[in-house]
Amino acid sequence: MEYSRNIPLLCDYYEYTMCNGYVEKGIEDNVVYFDIFFRTIPDHGGFAVVAGLEQLVDYIINLRFTDSDIEFLHSKNTFGEKFLNYLRDFRFSGDVWAIPEGTPVFPGEPLVTIRAPVAEAQILETFSLLTLNHQTLIATKASRIVRAAMGRTVMEFGSRRAQGTDAAILGARAAYIAGCGGTACTVSDKWYGVPASGTMAHSWVMMFDSEYEAFKAYCETYPNNASLLVDTYDTLNSGIPNAIRAFKEVLLPRGITKCAIRLDSGDLSFLTKKARQMLDEAGLKDCKIVVSNALDEWLIRDLLDQGAVIDAFGVGDNLITSHSDPVFNGVFKLAAIEKDGEIIPKIKISENVEKITTPGFKKIYRIYDRNGKAVADQICVYDETIDESEPLELFDPQATWKRKTLKGFKAKELMVKVIENGALIYDMPSLDEIRKHCAEEMDTLWDEVKRFSNPHHYYVDLSKKLWDVRNELLNQTRR
Amino acid sequence: MEYSRNIPLLCDYYEYTMCNGYVEKGIEDNVVYFDIFFRTIPDHGGFAVVAGLEQLVDYIINLRFTDSDIEFLHSKNTFGEKFLNYLRDFRFSGDVWAIPEGTPVFPGEPLVTIRAPVAEAQILETFSLLTLNHQTLIATKASRIVRAAMGRTVMEFGSRRAQGTDAAILGARAAYIAGCGGTACTVSDKWYGVPASGTMAHSWVMMFDSEYEAFKAYCETYPNNASLLVDTYDTLNSGIPNAIRAFKEVLLPRGITKCAIRLDSGDLSFLTKKARQMLDEAGLKDCKIVVSNALDEWLIRDLLDQGAVIDAFGVGDNLITSHSDPVFNGVFKLAAIEKDGEIIPKIKISENVEKITTPGFKKIYRIYDRNGKAVADQICVYDETIDESEPLELFDPQATWKRKTLKGFKAKELMVKVIENGALIYDMPSLDEIRKHCAEEMDTLWDEVKRFSNPHHYYVDLSKKLWDVRNELLNQTRR
Repeated sequence: MEYSRNIPLLCDYYEYTMCNGYVEKGIEDNVVYFDIFFRTIPDHGGFAVVAGLEQLVDYIINLRFTDSDIEFLHSKNTFGEKFLNYLRDFRFSGDVWAIPEGTPVFPGEPLVTIRAPVAEAQILETFSLLTLNHQTLIATKASRIVRAAMGRTVMEFGSRRAQGTDAAILGARAAYIAGCGGTACTVSDKWYGVPASGTMAHSWVMMFDSEYEAFKAYCETYPNNASLLVDTYDTLNSGIPNAIRAFKEVLLPRGITKCAIRLDSGDLSFLTKKARQMLDEAGLKDCKIVVSNALDEWLIRDLLDQGAVIDAFGVGDNLITSHSDPVFNGVFKLAAIEKDGEIIPKIKISENVEKITTPGFKKIYRIYDRNGKAVADQICVYDETIDESEPLELFDPQATWKRKTLKGFKAKELMVKVIENGALIYDMPSLDEIRKHCAEEMDTLWDEVKRFSNPHHYYVDLSKKLWDVRNELLNQTRR
Repeated sequence: MEYSRNIPLLCDYYEYTMCNGYVEKGIEDNVVYFDIFFRTIPDHGGFAVVAGLEQLVDYIINLRFTDSDIEFLHSKNTFGEKFLNYLRDFRFSGDVWAIPEGTPVFPGEPLVTIRAPVAEAQILETFSLLTLNHQTLIATKASRIVRAAMGRTVMEFGSRRAQGTDAAILGARAAYIAGCGGTACTVSDKWYGVPASGTMAHSWVMMFDSEYEAFKAYCETYPNNASLLVDTYDTLNSGIPNAIRAFKEVLLPRGITKCAIRLDSGDLSFLTKKARQMLDEAGLKDCKIVVSNALDEWLIRDLLDQGAVIDAFGVGDNLITSHSDPVFNGVFKLAAIEKDGEIIPKIKISENVEKITTPGFKKIYRIYDRNGKAVADQICVYDETIDESEPLELFDPQATWKRKTLKGFKAKELMVKVIENGALIYDMPSLDEIRKHCAEEMDTLWDEVKRFSNPHHYYVDLSKKLWDVRNELLNQTRR
């Protein structure tokens, strides 16, 4: 697969020292459950949009170590022969459950659960987190920017400022899932089908003896897709007049009225209003106005609030790096171990209370009200079922006196089993299906959850049974 | 080359629309000069540390388009046959000058200059910026964090929060250049020789029936490298006492006194002081204390100011994403074109004054005083030479009345020619040589430039000749 970017040794060294230790101690085949979950939402938002599962699944089912990998590890004089042989034959043999890509998700709930022999699961930690953290970060940011644009097209333009190649390529994929209309990154189109487009940089304009000649040449080359960058020298006095002249001389005689200008500097609110007026007066009502230049959700909202006349936005570094909050803090934590066929929940305590984990093998239900709006997620023990015909009592796991009883709700399980005994058993959706799923799921969220500032804190509760497990383990540890 | 991460189509789509246009207009072979430079320093710092040249050179000299790439572009129904054939035979034939990796650099000066037929140069834009922007960003951030640690080891631990695979792998490389002692990212060791290391996560501790058993098992497996994570349950009441017991029972009888503990949560200042006291009282004076948990240069400085007793720092997401300022804003701008063998400077004007470019084919001198400290960089026209035996007048290019005359200085050209007629002519230094170069160059900077807050604004001036060229072009455009 040309676009498989798997690198077996892209793995924290401590995964190997631990696994070697498990092998030395003969416990490498003890079956365990690891959860991937996150603690806080970037930009103090109300939800995140999960992404990256396709790459994670590809990695898990194809993970193999080459002779050269084994040789390298051998050269570190740290690992035993038994472990190196173990790696030589490495195949993931476990099970994986996950929330499908494009779904809005909330802190504390497992996005992925891995059940496998401990060494197999441990080795997945670094790459699993890396790929989910990165794409979820970008999808979450893109969702904010797309919402700010109020239905206008948002194009992802950030490759040149991305943090490395995959940040550019997979960042474009994540942005598309969350509603961006396309990307400038050509290979993201080739590999993933994210529509790529683009027209000109300032250098095109500077390559010709005059701005007018540059515009004319571009219109002649691309009469059906003439989008001219008008701010190389002087937007209002030179750029827009030259663009109008080129459109009139090259496009209109051919009966083409579809065209565009792009503004990449200056006061975009003022300039787009002026530009619209000049274009309309020249009879170019079909000419679109595209803007770029360090945009993010706040600037876009501001521009629209000020009546800027904009048809589409190109968003670069603030999207592709999630500039205002560039880290998604997913973690990979042991939740349970199997002993004699029994699942034994495990907990990690911490001086930082928010770092305490939710123990056990779990499932998640999303609860919808009569209008189809999501009201809460309930995390349950794996063998629980929610009966929609019975009233459901929800309670805050920290402040247990906060209670609410629901009737007439719908409950949907969020996680699906994607890998069983090491084999893919899930029909991976296409990128456009994921994007559609994301849009549909967004519609189930209250506007209050989607707000940028101080969004409603969506409820993620524990079932009574799971709460008891957690409490019992906390008390045990305290004793 | 296993570690070559080149992807020909990782390129903004507009580079192709422009190049296709150049081919259509028959100007694709017009020779031009593009500069890569940046406008502002991340975190309001006093300088950046340039990195990424090795990957850039590898990309430029190896760039080829596969049949599948050409076929994909063909399928977009945008490009002419002439251009697709041009790509089929693509080989970079131009020249490249660059400032060597690890050098401190300043806004406005070219980090790289490319002289080539316009279509060849244009196509390099996206990847060149991406790789230089990313690695320079991380090297610059790592330099800050390493300085804050005041000689203590800083380990790069951030792969799981990096923005994609190359962000992790090449981020570790950039961090090492700027002085980090190593990384957790195993493949960065295999490919680039960044020393990888690591010991255990909380899951190791949770895999055993008790914390003590987990520690004992680890010490037995790695008696010569026993570093124990002591905060899984209760650092002072359980973690450190259990670590001391395991060290005493397993290591001391073997005559091993070298060991370590790691703290990953809680009040690190308070806990490290307590830990040091407990370890010393137990006779474990050689036991090192390593800390991690959302560290950056400010937290590290704070901890040391408070007397925290720390031997080494593990730094994760704040380093690998340059969290506080995750974008390095390098740009790729046309500086000149050749016409009938003559070099004609080109300028881009902008409503935003800081976006106006410095025209022409240029070179840079770094000027050192008698003590070997760098006092200013002077950007000159390519054919100028600075004579160290004559007084040198520097002046501020914005405020030209600010002048200074230097005598007894040394002048060193910063850029070296790395590619000539498409071939590598530069002896690429090893990673350890780059790291050493960085450390040496750092010593030439005044402490005032290295300060975190309000650093001294290092002078980057233009020669009189270059200033005249720029001024003349500005005046021409205004007319």
